[in-house]
Amino acid sequence: MTEIYFEDIREGDVRELGSYRVPKDEMVAFAHQYDPQPIHVDESAAEDSIYDGIIASGWYTAGVCMQLLVDEFLDHAASVGSLGLDELRWETPVRPSDVISARNEILEVRESTTRDDRGYVKNYLVAHNQDGDEVLSWTATNIFLRKSAAP
Amino acid sequence: MTEIYFEDIREGDVRELGSYRVPKDEMVAFAHQYDPQPIHVDESAAEDSIYDGIIASGWYTAGVCMQLLVDEFLDHAASVGSLGLDELRWETPVRPSDVISARNEILEVRESTTRDDRGYVKNYLVAHNQDGDEVLSWTATNIFLRKSAAP
Repeated sequence: MTEIYFEDIREGDVRELGSYRVPKDEMVAFAHQYDPQPIHVDESAAEDSIYDGIIASGWYTAGVCMQLLVDEFLDHAASVGSLGLDELRWETPVRPSDVISARNEILEVRESTTRDDRGYVKNYLVAHNQDGDEVLSWTATNIFLRKSAAP
Repeated sequence: MTEIYFEDIREGDVRELGSYRVPKDEMVAFAHQYDPQPIHVDESAAEDSIYDGIIASGWYTAGVCMQLLVDEFLDHAASVGSLGLDELRWETPVRPSDVISARNEILEVRESTTRDDRGYVKNYLVAHNQDGDEVLSWTATNIFLRKSAAP
């Protein structure tokens, strides 16, 4: 189902990635396994914290955004991983039943200078909650294959 | 079980966070939910990819490292979240049954200039596999409460 290769990606491209309503059970289950801090897993400790209630692990919020990015973009593209992220920011805590909407923008495309089968795409993802508050943003560099390298 | 407050954290502190063996089932289940790209969930597509086999979602690797950081450090500290990360890097792919070991180093501590109950701690986390290859690193800024703000 690969429709988008490196050559098809343009600086300035913007993709709306849709939205996802955060189920409390899923949010807390994630934190139990990967980020079991009291503010993420312990309702009463979270009530007494500076957040006045349980909030999502930032890694869970990142996972929700990644899921939207894969469904709406990477799954249709010759994407083969990422070199990493810069500037991952959690601006506003995510709470149970929040509706997270994400958007992706292509910042920069460059061919690999050492491998002729691929190129690198720097892109910005930003997510907001139902009130329009920014909850997360990141800048990532992803690897995409060139059409000439298609099997 | 809070033993470590902002005042107890010193630039240059190094903490070994232990290690974790990656179960294939867990690694793939994570990817199915949060990062369902073929290289992370489809054995035969991954065999045919540039990775010659299934690899972990970078977000799963981050989750494994976070779990080690919480268990060995944050769970014993007055940690109340993070402002974000810079320079999250995935250097070497993680594969099933890899043993991931992580280490944390404190880079910088600074008091909040606007809130007298907290301070900010910039810290570096690095993780290696059983062969000594670096698999992940990040630089994060975490929020810690001061002893004077303890309940």
